[in-house]
Amino acid sequence: MNFSSDTAAPVHPAILEALAEANAGPAPSYGADKWTAAAKAALAEVFETDLDMWLVPSGTAANALSLALICPSHGAIACHEEAHIERDERGAPEFYTGGAKLALLPGPHAKIDLGALKIRLAASRPGFVHEVPVCALSLSNLTESGAAYTVSEIAERADLARAHGFVHLDGARFANALVTTGATPAELSWKAGINLMSFGATKNGAIGCEAILLFGEARKFAPDLMARAKRAGHMPPKMRFLAAQMGAYLKDGLWLDLARRSNAAARQLAESLVKAGGKLAHPVDGNEVFCRLPAGAADRLSAAGAAFYPWPDGSHRFVCSWATSDAEIEAAVRLLA
Amino acid sequence: MNFSSDTAAPVHPAILEALAEANAGPAPSYGADKWTAAAKAALAEVFETDLDMWLVPSGTAANALSLALICPSHGAIACHEEAHIERDERGAPEFYTGGAKLALLPGPHAKIDLGALKIRLAASRPGFVHEVPVCALSLSNLTESGAAYTVSEIAERADLARAHGFVHLDGARFANALVTTGATPAELSWKAGINLMSFGATKNGAIGCEAILLFGEARKFAPDLMARAKRAGHMPPKMRFLAAQMGAYLKDGLWLDLARRSNAAARQLAESLVKAGGKLAHPVDGNEVFCRLPAGAADRLSAAGAAFYPWPDGSHRFVCSWATSDAEIEAAVRLLA
Amino acid sequence: MNFSSDTAAPVHPAILEALAEANAGPAPSYGADKWTAAAKAALAEVFETDLDMWLVPSGTAANALSLALICPSHGAIACHEEAHIERDERGAPEFYTGGAKLALLPGPHAKIDLGALKIRLAASRPGFVHEVPVCALSLSNLTESGAAYTVSEIAERADLARAHGFVHLDGARFANALVTTGATPAELSWKAGINLMSFGATKNGAIGCEAILLFGEARKFAPDLMARAKRAGHMPPKMRFLAAQMGAYLKDGLWLDLARRSNAAARQLAESLVKAGGKLAHPVDGNEVFCRLPAGAADRLSAAGAAFYPWPDGSHRFVCSWATSDAEIEAAVRLLA
Amino acid sequence: MNFSSDTAAPVHPAILEALAEANAGPAPSYGADKWTAAAKAALAEVFETDLDMWLVPSGTAANALSLALICPSHGAIACHEEAHIERDERGAPEFYTGGAKLALLPGPHAKIDLGALKIRLAASRPGFVHEVPVCALSLSNLTESGAAYTVSEIAERADLARAHGFVHLDGARFANALVTTGATPAELSWKAGINLMSFGATKNGAIGCEAILLFGEARKFAPDLMARAKRAGHMPPKMRFLAAQMGAYLKDGLWLDLARRSNAAARQLAESLVKAGGKLAHPVDGNEVFCRLPAGAADRLSAAGAAFYPWPDGSHRFVCSWATSDAEIEAAVRLLA
Repeated sequence: MNFSSDTAAPVHPAILEALAEANAGPAPSYGADKWTAAAKAALAEVFETDLDMWLVPSGTAANALSLALICPSHGAIACHEEAHIERDERGAPEFYTGGAKLALLPGPHAKIDLGALKIRLAASRPGFVHEVPVCALSLSNLTESGAAYTVSEIAERADLARAHGFVHLDGARFANALVTTGATPAELSWKAGINLMSFGATKNGAIGCEAILLFGEARKFAPDLMARAKRAGHMPPKMRFLAAQMGAYLKDGLWLDLARRSNAAARQLAESLVKAGGKLAHPVDGNEVFCRLPAGAADRLSAAGAAFYPWPDGSHRFVCSWATSDAEIEAAVRLLA
Repeated sequence: MNFSSDTAAPVHPAILEALAEANAGPAPSYGADKWTAAAKAALAEVFETDLDMWLVPSGTAANALSLALICPSHGAIACHEEAHIERDERGAPEFYTGGAKLALLPGPHAKIDLGALKIRLAASRPGFVHEVPVCALSLSNLTESGAAYTVSEIAERADLARAHGFVHLDGARFANALVTTGATPAELSWKAGINLMSFGATKNGAIGCEAILLFGEARKFAPDLMARAKRAGHMPPKMRFLAAQMGAYLKDGLWLDLARRSNAAARQLAESLVKAGGKLAHPVDGNEVFCRLPAGAADRLSAAGAAFYPWPDGSHRFVCSWATSDAEIEAAVRLLA
Repeated sequence: MNFSSDTAAPVHPAILEALAEANAGPAPSYGADKWTAAAKAALAEVFETDLDMWLVPSGTAANALSLALICPSHGAIACHEEAHIERDERGAPEFYTGGAKLALLPGPHAKIDLGALKIRLAASRPGFVHEVPVCALSLSNLTESGAAYTVSEIAERADLARAHGFVHLDGARFANALVTTGATPAELSWKAGINLMSFGATKNGAIGCEAILLFGEARKFAPDLMARAKRAGHMPPKMRFLAAQMGAYLKDGLWLDLARRSNAAARQLAESLVKAGGKLAHPVDGNEVFCRLPAGAADRLSAAGAAFYPWPDGSHRFVCSWATSDAEIEAAVRLLA
Repeated sequence: MNFSSDTAAPVHPAILEALAEANAGPAPSYGADKWTAAAKAALAEVFETDLDMWLVPSGTAANALSLALICPSHGAIACHEEAHIERDERGAPEFYTGGAKLALLPGPHAKIDLGALKIRLAASRPGFVHEVPVCALSLSNLTESGAAYTVSEIAERADLARAHGFVHLDGARFANALVTTGATPAELSWKAGINLMSFGATKNGAIGCEAILLFGEARKFAPDLMARAKRAGHMPPKMRFLAAQMGAYLKDGLWLDLARRSNAAARQLAESLVKAGGKLAHPVDGNEVFCRLPAGAADRLSAAGAAFYPWPDGSHRFVCSWATSDAEIEAAVRLLA
């Protein structure tokens, strides 16, 4: 019963096997290999558009490199006050941008409130030199509360931000959001106004592999991205082993299968928690359940060896992964019954 | 006949297998797992001392994070003018330190000339606010010319630098230097005055795994290292798969076997090149051969499909790896005969 | 009737004259002159303690250099959400620290709420690598709302923060706070737990001169301060002309006379505004008045040529300076009557 | 006999008087005042072109802010190996650019050797991600050895660099170079291919005032310059007192008169030194004399109270200023005879 994090889960076997397949003799270093080319082609197909991309081993690296492309050191990035880039990355955006600010916005379920965004953007005065103007917007889908933005919710926010700068998406759990919304990858990203994104695979079965994707006009940043990745130590010589992960992840829809699996597990767990008297703090749009537990439930689960975290808002967070087994869910259900 | 780089080589099977072994069920994220603990213990045993460590996927990351610990933004790091940190890392030390300088020193075979170091350090005036004082020394072993510093050569340079700051070692090819010098890991590092080092495995059979090692007094930097690694995106959630590489690399002396193999291949190749009329530009102390080729040799090798690089000094560089086969060497020998 | 800002005011004649006096023949550059020595001695006398200091031409420079000494790039500085360092310095703290965060706290009259500070500090976990821990506290006296912290209010906040790091004071209007509280400079700074401060003269009659003062344990940062000031272009060669300003400012209590004058003007203006039906939004503890004006008053004042600013909270801000004349106040009073 | 530095000299009385004239009542802060507008207009007239500008109190600030506009954090600035930005600014360019490199070039009299520049630029490979490409060129006129580049020498270097990026001029002693070359300000700057420059007044009679000038295409950087200046603490509220200095400096050709005076003093001193058996190490194109002194001369001068510096190349540096008196020169001449 490990619901601590989807990063505690093991790697999907197909992804490990892909490493062995990529280990065939010598290959050019630093991304000039055929696996990297194939990963790029696969991403372009999945997203139905030409794109530029780079692979990094962590979401923090993907987010911070992306944001450094679109926000100058003297600008601000609008994001939710609970966003991963604000709360969980030890100031990575500030490091990579050379000291930009995050402009924090409220909103239920860690979705940026549309009205608050409107007000904040209207207050941003690029010509008033004393203040830090908003130069970029960063959205997360799934959000930090496990909710999914719909296509139109993304589009509404991106539309507002366009006049101020580029729009980034933290898609560490993008697959989970896709499965729930039923949107295509293109619809939930560039077609809705996303200019560049962190496309996560790690939380959904990879070893450590996140793609930075540049769409449309943002493709002009590709050389800058290469320079910054290199300079940050995020251009490991044997790139083929990052690329092989991405290739296997996308092949035959594995990534969506895995997301469906973890989403289903989360729904099942959520139902049991509710039946047992718990109250969901947020919609279960993906593989995370935030639940205010009934008295005694947390202790009972912990005593039985279940791993999960108390959350700052008073709820508890349970994360399911592609590897969460029926047995784990059933064991939890039994304990809650 | 791929002599282009040891990073073009495939991964040693034992290291790939270790990933599969580490893929057993859930495990704590961010380095709190048992494989990371085991890697640390193995490194401590190999280096015969307690130490702190962190694992990153590239030598650039290992070097830059290390240097950021020991040099303030307003200081300089003394290094060889051909050092990897100066020539090949797109300014990573400058990025991670927040704008420190590299103080470049000459010396044959990319070893820092002792006299030049003495003069440079004597000229460093920390109390003279207008100039950037030398605050750290970075040595590379193997050097960028494939030469090995002996224990006493390291110690002489480290002794000079001690009064100015800490001493870092770029050990991307440390195993190759060890095998040649016959020194122990401890002798060629902390016992000779190295305070912290980048201990490479990638060029010697790993997927992408370099350990930052903190010895003795430099262990005080461990919390700073964690914070900086996190902030740089170099704390991937599934650390166990980095740690498993290091574990397998060190197990039963695999790393030294691999280095012996690549060193032997280089020596054999060097002999053939010399017999064929080539002149070695640098001592072949490891797995790299720098040779001024006789007329026609480069063309003949290229035409036959051999991969190798012309070097700025007029020689050509041939790199052997653990995977360089006898057949490859023999093919080259035949072409040169 | 210029109530727009105390920086719109002219320079006090005694300070201009001091420049002419300092212009006597050659003098050593970069602060090795006798005027700089005298300014340091005068500051030590006024603050009744040995100290280190440096002079810069703007409060932004004083604050940002100070904060860079006490907060690492991967730490956070706790401050009020309306603090000048957050709102009005275009991200200077982020630039000088290399990307630290500001941890924003609420509180009436731009004083940090004690309870909120307690909760924020308790939530700071330096050992939890994912989050940015609070490493420093910055207070402002006068606050951005023109209120003065008393000695005990400063001490309470500094006491809480001590275990987390050093405490900085933005004293751009320190003289105004002193005059109101009746405290001595020592009592309202280092004796209350302030480790280093920006001691402003510009808003109170100087051309452009703010002293960074290091007290007690913080004096260890003096060499770092020098290096950072130099590197930032804040070590102008003819330092004597900055130092001469500070000397004249402190001489015979001029600085306190000037602050008394501007405080008195503000009180008089405030009384008239209240009599005319205005409501003070904040206590008038110094030379600033924040007032919700009765209907028509703002238009009447503007039409008559008065300069003042609307404030985000719905009030209007009126700033008096040492140069605000009785005639200006009386003219305003007549208009409001 | 103070030949230590032109920054040891006092301020010209007309410049001090201009401060008093600017001290007339209230004025808008942060450069929105009429003196700043007048300084800009005067600079445009002197340089015979529309331009953007900002005023800062030190050459280090002017240089570093300029370079941050034209070189990304992952690029390099080509400059002479003895340039002030390399030797005397404590890493200010690295700080302001966020970690760019300086690419150091040789050349006699601190002029960049044309052939060396050609080779360095040809070796710069912007598309090769591992190396730091040259993105900008910085020239100094006068050079660090007191030599003046002619118009055609500037143009030759700027022409080479144009394809790589913008060209900056460190004109801390631009007036001295103008007087010697007989060129107009326009000819020696933008007409010769300079895109932006640090135009110094401090070493030539001002208190502390250097203008950053943006010409032609580089004017697009004006908003970025404002943001960076603000963020660096280089937007002091009472800008009028910086602007008043520049106004007085340029009025009626005062700046060129002062430069003529210091240049003449240097020539006279140089002749005496040569007559006394000294050998000039560099051409005396401005107000600096670098001379290998005959035996005993340095001691004799020092004993008589003359101030001057030994230089790393074995010569001694004597700097004359607008305030160097005939009596000082004559006293030195007598001692040397």
